[in-house]
Amino acid sequence: MRTRPLKVALLGCGVVGSEVARIMTTHADDLAARIGAPVELAGVAVRRPDRVRAGIDPALVTTDATALVKRGDIDVVVEVIGGIEPARTLITTAFEHGASVVSANKALLAQDGAALHAAAEEQGKDLYYEAAVAGAIPLIRPLRESLAGDKVNRVLGIVNGTTNFILDKMDSTGAGYQEALDEATALGYAEADPTADVEGFDAAAKAAILAGIAFHTRVRLDDVYREGMTEVTAADFASAKEMGCTIKLLAICERAADGESVTARVHPAMIPLTHPLASVRGAYNAVFVESDASGQLMFYGPGAGGAPTASAVLGDLVAVCRNRLSGTTGPGESAYAALRVSPMGEVVTRYHISLDVADKPGVLAQVATVFAEHGVSIDTVRQQGKDGEASLVVVTHRASDAALNGTVEALRKLDTVRGVASIMRVEGE
Amino acid sequence: MRTRPLKVALLGCGVVGSEVARIMTTHADDLAARIGAPVELAGVAVRRPDRVRAGIDPALVTTDATALVKRGDIDVVVEVIGGIEPARTLITTAFEHGASVVSANKALLAQDGAALHAAAEEQGKDLYYEAAVAGAIPLIRPLRESLAGDKVNRVLGIVNGTTNFILDKMDSTGAGYQEALDEATALGYAEADPTADVEGFDAAAKAAILAGIAFHTRVRLDDVYREGMTEVTAADFASAKEMGCTIKLLAICERAADGESVTARVHPAMIPLTHPLASVRGAYNAVFVESDASGQLMFYGPGAGGAPTASAVLGDLVAVCRNRLSGTTGPGESAYAALRVSPMGEVVTRYHISLDVADKPGVLAQVATVFAEHGVSIDTVRQQGKDGEASLVVVTHRASDAALNGTVEALRKLDTVRGVASIMRVEGE
Repeated sequence: MRTRPLKVALLGCGVVGSEVARIMTTHADDLAARIGAPVELAGVAVRRPDRVRAGIDPALVTTDATALVKRGDIDVVVEVIGGIEPARTLITTAFEHGASVVSANKALLAQDGAALHAAAEEQGKDLYYEAAVAGAIPLIRPLRESLAGDKVNRVLGIVNGTTNFILDKMDSTGAGYQEALDEATALGYAEADPTADVEGFDAAAKAAILAGIAFHTRVRLDDVYREGMTEVTAADFASAKEMGCTIKLLAICERAADGESVTARVHPAMIPLTHPLASVRGAYNAVFVESDASGQLMFYGPGAGGAPTASAVLGDLVAVCRNRLSGTTGPGESAYAALRVSPMGEVVTRYHISLDVADKPGVLAQVATVFAEHGVSIDTVRQQGKDGEASLVVVTHRASDAALNGTVEALRKLDTVRGVASIMRVEGE
Repeated sequence: MRTRPLKVALLGCGVVGSEVARIMTTHADDLAARIGAPVELAGVAVRRPDRVRAGIDPALVTTDATALVKRGDIDVVVEVIGGIEPARTLITTAFEHGASVVSANKALLAQDGAALHAAAEEQGKDLYYEAAVAGAIPLIRPLRESLAGDKVNRVLGIVNGTTNFILDKMDSTGAGYQEALDEATALGYAEADPTADVEGFDAAAKAAILAGIAFHTRVRLDDVYREGMTEVTAADFASAKEMGCTIKLLAICERAADGESVTARVHPAMIPLTHPLASVRGAYNAVFVESDASGQLMFYGPGAGGAPTASAVLGDLVAVCRNRLSGTTGPGESAYAALRVSPMGEVVTRYHISLDVADKPGVLAQVATVFAEHGVSIDTVRQQGKDGEASLVVVTHRASDAALNGTVEALRKLDTVRGVASIMRVEGE
């Protein structure tokens, strides 16, 4: 075993960073044995150096992250700051000064992954980011390496723990969205401003990263259709139950039937209770992967939190250190397939639509005509009368999102349709 | 991209081998793009060359596997023959003649993994075997690489599809063992001689491999306690249901509480219905991994079959080819921790024991005294009278297997105990 240690610079020392530092210290012997050389924390860049960090030598702490990544003797930079800047500049500077990088930064990878990979490759360095998607759950490595000899057709994932906690609570207690959100906030599962989670921005970044790797195609955050889950109601859950379904916020990356294009999207959807994703409880994450040869795989675990995310960071750190010792790099960006990324309108799926309609003869015929005119085939219709009004629940066969949108627009113009109470996609069948 | 192809020799062309050959042909362009060079099937060794193999050039087929691995121009040998010999000799010969090896051979790896890893290392070659455990499910790579910065404490897995199919059938239909086995055989899930599956030999080999990797310690097949599932009855399932449990054949690899020793075992066990493994249906496999930092992860998918196993083989093939192009090797054996592998007697768990007893006063006191004398603490007791006889169901707190065995031996000597109807461990709580 080499005795000269590999030097690690840690950018950020919050929930994840402090766990990375702690494990590097407490498990130093194990890490050394697994890497083949000791690893040493050579510097920790933070914004507020006055906050005491248990177990970290104060002499290592600096506010000058740029100087740290420019030192030239750093083997690996671990970036757990998050956000676009200064993380992006620090990472490219690290490559220029000879370091490889391990990052947990989903937003940055989803937005600028291609440029960062190019910068790493230009300098012959590694860029690893298992922690950017679904915390501790091994996903990037299995998709990139274990399935390297297979053809992935679909990735269907619960990749945001906050929203899964809220939806699970609504499902199990009948609570409304706000009540469930309040509980998530009180328990620390949701942040004071939950926008990034509940509006699907966080999941969309992960969808972009997963789609890119799964399909060997560049998929940017802008390519991902995104719909949050703030409009999901207790009534939707009741409808889902009648269908033998529950509701999850899903990140869905799909190869089109012709194999020539792909889509990536995030939205709430009904999935059958028999689907393995339906039983993912609380803040857990799970990702379902369908491939030609391997069939259906599922990866399940804690999708966030300091220790789980640190576990993913450290797995990457060991790999990058090993690569460095053997003078090589791991797999870089694989975008050779360069498939077309289709807009949401081309996505084909099933829909569950609740309409409030006038309770009089002929309404069903009118509604059915609109569906037919737009080429959307109806699977089942259920009519329920309530206080002079009536509701009509339509479940369609598979149709394009564009055709469904056209249908809904036309339905809204019907005099007999008082309102479109909800539209929800049905997935995982 | 390099234009000179990497040469692959395929040993065995049965269910898995023919799928490997097929995908190497149909997905040649994708494999080349992902590896950075084309891969070419340079030879296929089979026992019966007269069996026509669709899509394989007859000129490549040989019965002389030894000559094939000795050719000297082979980059990677894919071994999907199974069994100990001639696979072992062929693999070591392959290393000596400059090839790396991808194997799906669980029996060989479990018995001689250390020697094979040493042979690979001596020659500076790779030995990969993702397909040896749980078919297409990525397990070896996540344990070895993704969790390289974590400390694994427990691996709890359903790693045999045949037995899971049988147990699932017994659970869902109330069928007895033989009836469920017959159905599994008729549907092709069980072989004509199901011994390797139902007696737990197959799962024990996988447990040895998983424990070795998870604990960085050599664990041989002989170290694994093994108990088959042929004695599981419909009555056991009824008892399990009363406990809110089901019964699964589990491979369990555990680090002792003091962290200084490990155990590996295969036996049927009750697990709570709320445990993610409880809902693994049919012939699917799933492995639950508990670690210090990452918490609870689960990996789920098809555990056998030609195409899924081929997917795992090809993922390894891509990795080994990439290593070869960059002049390096992946992680080899990691056995530095060299923890003690404890015998079954030291395993600590809970037990569910059904006794047939005389229906008269004082029996419970007698039985309880025996448990107390052996230091086994009782959690719950349930008495049921039936036709003059009675049954007593005891669920214990955690106790060592040695203490439980001593208890059962003493119980059998009691006049009032007519028989021990069943003993089953309770796991996953």
